[in-house]
Amino acid sequence: MIRIAIIGMGNLGKACAELIRASQDLELVATFTRQTSLEIMDWADKIDVVLVCVGSQIDAPVVTPWLAKNFCTVDSYDNHREMAKYIESISREHQSNNNSPHSSFVIPHCSPKVNIVGVGWDPGLFSLMRIYLGAFTGTEAKTFWGPGVSLGHTNAVKSIAGVKDAIQWTIPVISENRHKRVCHVVADTAKHRFIENEIKTMPNYFAPYQTEVHFVDKIKKSHQHGGFVIAKGNGVNTKFALKLKSNPKFTAAVMLAYAKAAVKLRDEGKSGVFTVADIAPRYLADNPIALI
Amino acid sequence: MIRIAIIGMGNLGKACAELIRASQDLELVATFTRQTSLEIMDWADKIDVVLVCVGSQIDAPVVTPWLAKNFCTVDSYDNHREMAKYIESISREHQSNNNSPHSSFVIPHCSPKVNIVGVGWDPGLFSLMRIYLGAFTGTEAKTFWGPGVSLGHTNAVKSIAGVKDAIQWTIPVISENRHKRVCHVVADTAKHRFIENEIKTMPNYFAPYQTEVHFVDKIKKSHQHGGFVIAKGNGVNTKFALKLKSNPKFTAAVMLAYAKAAVKLRDEGKSGVFTVADIAPRYLADNPIALI
Repeated sequence: MIRIAIIGMGNLGKACAELIRASQDLELVATFTRQTSLEIMDWADKIDVVLVCVGSQIDAPVVTPWLAKNFCTVDSYDNHREMAKYIESISREHQSNNNSPHSSFVIPHCSPKVNIVGVGWDPGLFSLMRIYLGAFTGTEAKTFWGPGVSLGHTNAVKSIAGVKDAIQWTIPVISENRHKRVCHVVADTAKHRFIENEIKTMPNYFAPYQTEVHFVDKIKKSHQHGGFVIAKGNGVNTKFALKLKSNPKFTAAVMLAYAKAAVKLRDEGKSGVFTVADIAPRYLADNPIALI
Repeated sequence: MIRIAIIGMGNLGKACAELIRASQDLELVATFTRQTSLEIMDWADKIDVVLVCVGSQIDAPVVTPWLAKNFCTVDSYDNHREMAKYIESISREHQSNNNSPHSSFVIPHCSPKVNIVGVGWDPGLFSLMRIYLGAFTGTEAKTFWGPGVSLGHTNAVKSIAGVKDAIQWTIPVISENRHKRVCHVVADTAKHRFIENEIKTMPNYFAPYQTEVHFVDKIKKSHQHGGFVIAKGNGVNTKFALKLKSNPKFTAAVMLAYAKAAVKLRDEGKSGVFTVADIAPRYLADNPIALI
């Protein structure tokens, strides 16, 4: 049994918990909220992998490097443009781990850890498609998202002061090879102008896109999402299509697949920060040769 | 520049040569037929990767282990059921390489080699889809081929004594979750009965399938092929679809992508037999983090 803990019990954390409880080979040993997260340091020898289910915008860049000293982690960090910086901040903790193994922040004698970042459907499955389809067709694979709800962008809006509830719909504009982002937000009228400006100027998440902000009385909940990756070249047309009924459930499923991979990598003595691009597919299968 | 050689100058070998000539970072330094293949041993220090483009049924199981002692190779070996045995036969050469580095069959002081097997669209790209989509949906991904021409099965038919020309069409029977194999064969009438029996009883290639054999005066050439991999589970529907205008060209393109990966693996000091499942996606991209 692989012993799993979860930090962050929002939609994604709850979806992880549900899938772990339904699993034969995973055991949910502890859950933590952002607030109770300090308590996890008492659990270092009782947890194989921590699923980091806090938001990418503010919390993950703090929480994951802090955990990396002592725990194998899997997260769904989704800020593509900040990914390299995020990886670097976690890698630094690995280096300091080696340099000062008895610092007050490090549990003594802990073994090197495997930290897998950016796991879900994009980044994650779609990243893999861009790499493979791009390499095999000799072209740049094109990605379209939606129409659907983006968890990361929804959380980014929710993190703004004064936002009571929110949802972000991503709409592909295929003919123009771009997307628009539509936010539905619940907030006091006095805050509308501030919030709309905060959203539209948010770097990476909204600033580079055509963004619409609509203030509503109540959010109609949905986790529907999907998209496709297409590439054409070298005598081939390829299309990968994804339709999600539940965005958090699928992100959770991909995270759990990589949690098992993290344990295999750790047991082989490997350590460091890994994206999906750094992990050979065989780590995801019990009997890979049967699937060749 | 990566220095490439090709053994076997049929459809696949020719497609490889054409793509290499159009490439910026690959150089075609030598080509060999099955008959002139012995001459390759004079080229050991002038070739980075040998593309093994001989047939899978009879030639590759002899040629690839023989080359593995002295060369990095990439092949499109396509006999799924014999894959484990094929890998083992090449691995044995690696072991004997280590044990007797000065045997008469081994060029002295050669460095360990990277041999990548089963590269193309199936095995290859479809194998990757089965692994990823299976792992993420928690189900067994289903594969459908065609309608289209199978290169491997066509070569298997052509290898039968008395066959003057042949083509094999694979037809998906989706409602029954199976395929049928339709062979068009040119041969003298006296040989028809023997050939039909040889095809229908050929292990792995035809014996497990509903197979039709039609004798014709002339083969209508085609390389059209395609298929899809589907998986459903964990709140998601996934479908990967492939349409090939040229089967050999796309197989060649995938082989060349892995030839570049072989050089990167070799340069990292890695050696051994690799399937697509054993190679992290990052080896296929110049700047993988940009695709995450």
